[in-house]
Amino acid sequence: MTLDELDTPCLVLDADRMERNVARLRGRLADLGVGLRPHLKTGKSVEVARRVMDSPQGPATVSTLKEAERFAVSGVRDLIYAVGIAPAKLPHVLALRSQGVDLVVLLDTVEQAEAVAAASREAGTAIPAMIEIDCDGHRAGVLPTDAAQLVAIGQALQQGGELRGVLTHAGGSYTARGTEALQQCAEEERRSVVDAATILRGAGLPCPVVSIGSTPTAHNATDLTGVTEVRAGVFVFFDLVMAGVGICQIDDIALSVLATVIGHQHEKGWILIDAGWMAMSQDRGTSKQAVSQGYGVVCDIHGTPYPDLILGDANQEHGIITVRPGSNGTLPDLAIGDRVRILPNHACSTGAQHSAYHVVRSLSTEVEAAWPRFGGW
Amino acid sequence: MTLDELDTPCLVLDADRMERNVARLRGRLADLGVGLRPHLKTGKSVEVARRVMDSPQGPATVSTLKEAERFAVSGVRDLIYAVGIAPAKLPHVLALRSQGVDLVVLLDTVEQAEAVAAASREAGTAIPAMIEIDCDGHRAGVLPTDAAQLVAIGQALQQGGELRGVLTHAGGSYTARGTEALQQCAEEERRSVVDAATILRGAGLPCPVVSIGSTPTAHNATDLTGVTEVRAGVFVFFDLVMAGVGICQIDDIALSVLATVIGHQHEKGWILIDAGWMAMSQDRGTSKQAVSQGYGVVCDIHGTPYPDLILGDANQEHGIITVRPGSNGTLPDLAIGDRVRILPNHACSTGAQHSAYHVVRSLSTEVEAAWPRFGGW
Repeated sequence: MTLDELDTPCLVLDADRMERNVARLRGRLADLGVGLRPHLKTGKSVEVARRVMDSPQGPATVSTLKEAERFAVSGVRDLIYAVGIAPAKLPHVLALRSQGVDLVVLLDTVEQAEAVAAASREAGTAIPAMIEIDCDGHRAGVLPTDAAQLVAIGQALQQGGELRGVLTHAGGSYTARGTEALQQCAEEERRSVVDAATILRGAGLPCPVVSIGSTPTAHNATDLTGVTEVRAGVFVFFDLVMAGVGICQIDDIALSVLATVIGHQHEKGWILIDAGWMAMSQDRGTSKQAVSQGYGVVCDIHGTPYPDLILGDANQEHGIITVRPGSNGTLPDLAIGDRVRILPNHACSTGAQHSAYHVVRSLSTEVEAAWPRFGGW
Repeated sequence: MTLDELDTPCLVLDADRMERNVARLRGRLADLGVGLRPHLKTGKSVEVARRVMDSPQGPATVSTLKEAERFAVSGVRDLIYAVGIAPAKLPHVLALRSQGVDLVVLLDTVEQAEAVAAASREAGTAIPAMIEIDCDGHRAGVLPTDAAQLVAIGQALQQGGELRGVLTHAGGSYTARGTEALQQCAEEERRSVVDAATILRGAGLPCPVVSIGSTPTAHNATDLTGVTEVRAGVFVFFDLVMAGVGICQIDDIALSVLATVIGHQHEKGWILIDAGWMAMSQDRGTSKQAVSQGYGVVCDIHGTPYPDLILGDANQEHGIITVRPGSNGTLPDLAIGDRVRILPNHACSTGAQHSAYHVVRSLSTEVEAAWPRFGGW
């Protein structure tokens, strides 16, 4: 089977690029002396997970209990569910833990810690939890300076549960620009969890795991003293947002959507394809960057970008290819039935629109394998 | 089972609102003397389809061959695939037609018409096709004034295929404001296909079907002379974009995402929930309207909106509830574990993130049924 024979639209994964991306981060973290706990929310695929984890048992990070369940079935035994826990989800967590999975939850309030401790006491087995630290104000977490809150959560947890450590995510790094700013994000991320760990340990509480993670900071940190593990997800595929932040080049992007030309509006300079926002997602992450890539960058079937050609607009099942406004690009001569590949703004959101990866090698159109991927909760 | 017991996030469908929405459009079209060919891309569910179609056999419209296949299996026999046909998809179309489904394709070029005619001759059975008309410049289609192109396509089709008629979609109506502007969109939509049909018939070509369709124009047309059918999709559920255009009220919206509170950032006025953009989609369709609804409007578990409370921001699995900027709303007192329902910007995109509808009646939390929905191509 080749890319010419697949039903379109569909998702294509360049395994050479993926392997290169994984090796690059692994090499970096080895130099920094810290382990990788990859975030499997980007791939949502057992086959992809096996290529990013240290071993088939993990460690790894997930964003939903559905992911935890699917990866547990495939043999992963060491997981952090890195979204604040809702108490109603604790029976599901306990069920997975009883199957031999060391599934760790995340929280940032005393209420959650009390719920975890109570559920642990009732089940007769301690549920381990990490305290989420807010390193840059972008989402959840306790401020690393809020010693009273940190200690109160830790103490509440220890009434039957288990304080496993502290965790943060430098989501703010996605909008940082330039090496200096990114290195500063990485250092703030590191310092926030190390400070929080120091506070907890100073109060006589355990804090074995000190976990940080985001792809931009993982690729820019210069010192990870005190950190025990790095979580990162999108590094495995990369995408146009990461290229815009300067973390990768366009030709590192391993994911693309294969599409077929279905029409033209010649006087408008439009080529229509059968990949709209349903196939690309509606992630417009590059629209706030220096170069907006519309709904994606248009490549030929081998994955080589056409100069300044983007998916300028999209409806549910229609994509409109245009030359980037203000550029010197010219519209290529693509006929009805010709095929293109579109590089995504955000690998996590584009991937989520599909149920399988069609795996190729760089510049080849031979499909080596179809790897299933899943979604949902 | 009640909404308090479901795993979150998940999709909730208010069947009372859906039935009211369907009855409203049916009543309108009956008054206008024209049939409804509902677009099943919004629901992507056999159960929903059965509640919007005239009969279990159809007629209906689809946006992918996957939809055609799934609805064919459930007994639908009269379908238009309303996205320009790629020649490589014709064997799939023929396979569905050989199962007794009158599946009609769409095209707007002589190349596509020649491909349909050739595939028809080769298969020994005529594939019917509609010519897409461009009524407002927003996407695909032949201009209704381009008589030469219309006749050339029709003649090419008749060399073995079958010219079934003309079809247009007033996508531009989504950005129209006010009854007068919407009525004008509806009239331009009507006139474009009626004019095209007149040209084709004048050239001695058949044109039995004259098909228009968009929810805003379907709800604003005052005269549909010459039109044989109306296609519309989002009318079944409605959404915040349609409310912003003025086609429905907020309390007509039948679809919502059930979510659980997982944290607070009190000093910022944030309530965090476990529904992020993966559950809501990244459709920000109201951001260009008079009132931006963020990622959705926040309701209590019974579906009643909190005043000026929106999902202000979203990460993959985190949603951030905030008071609408500039409003007098106040943050409700929601504790960890409390549940809310979020009304979506766009029913088609939010629905696509989920694999089932949890069906309730208005103001009730009792789940009557779980209806599967599908995605993909």
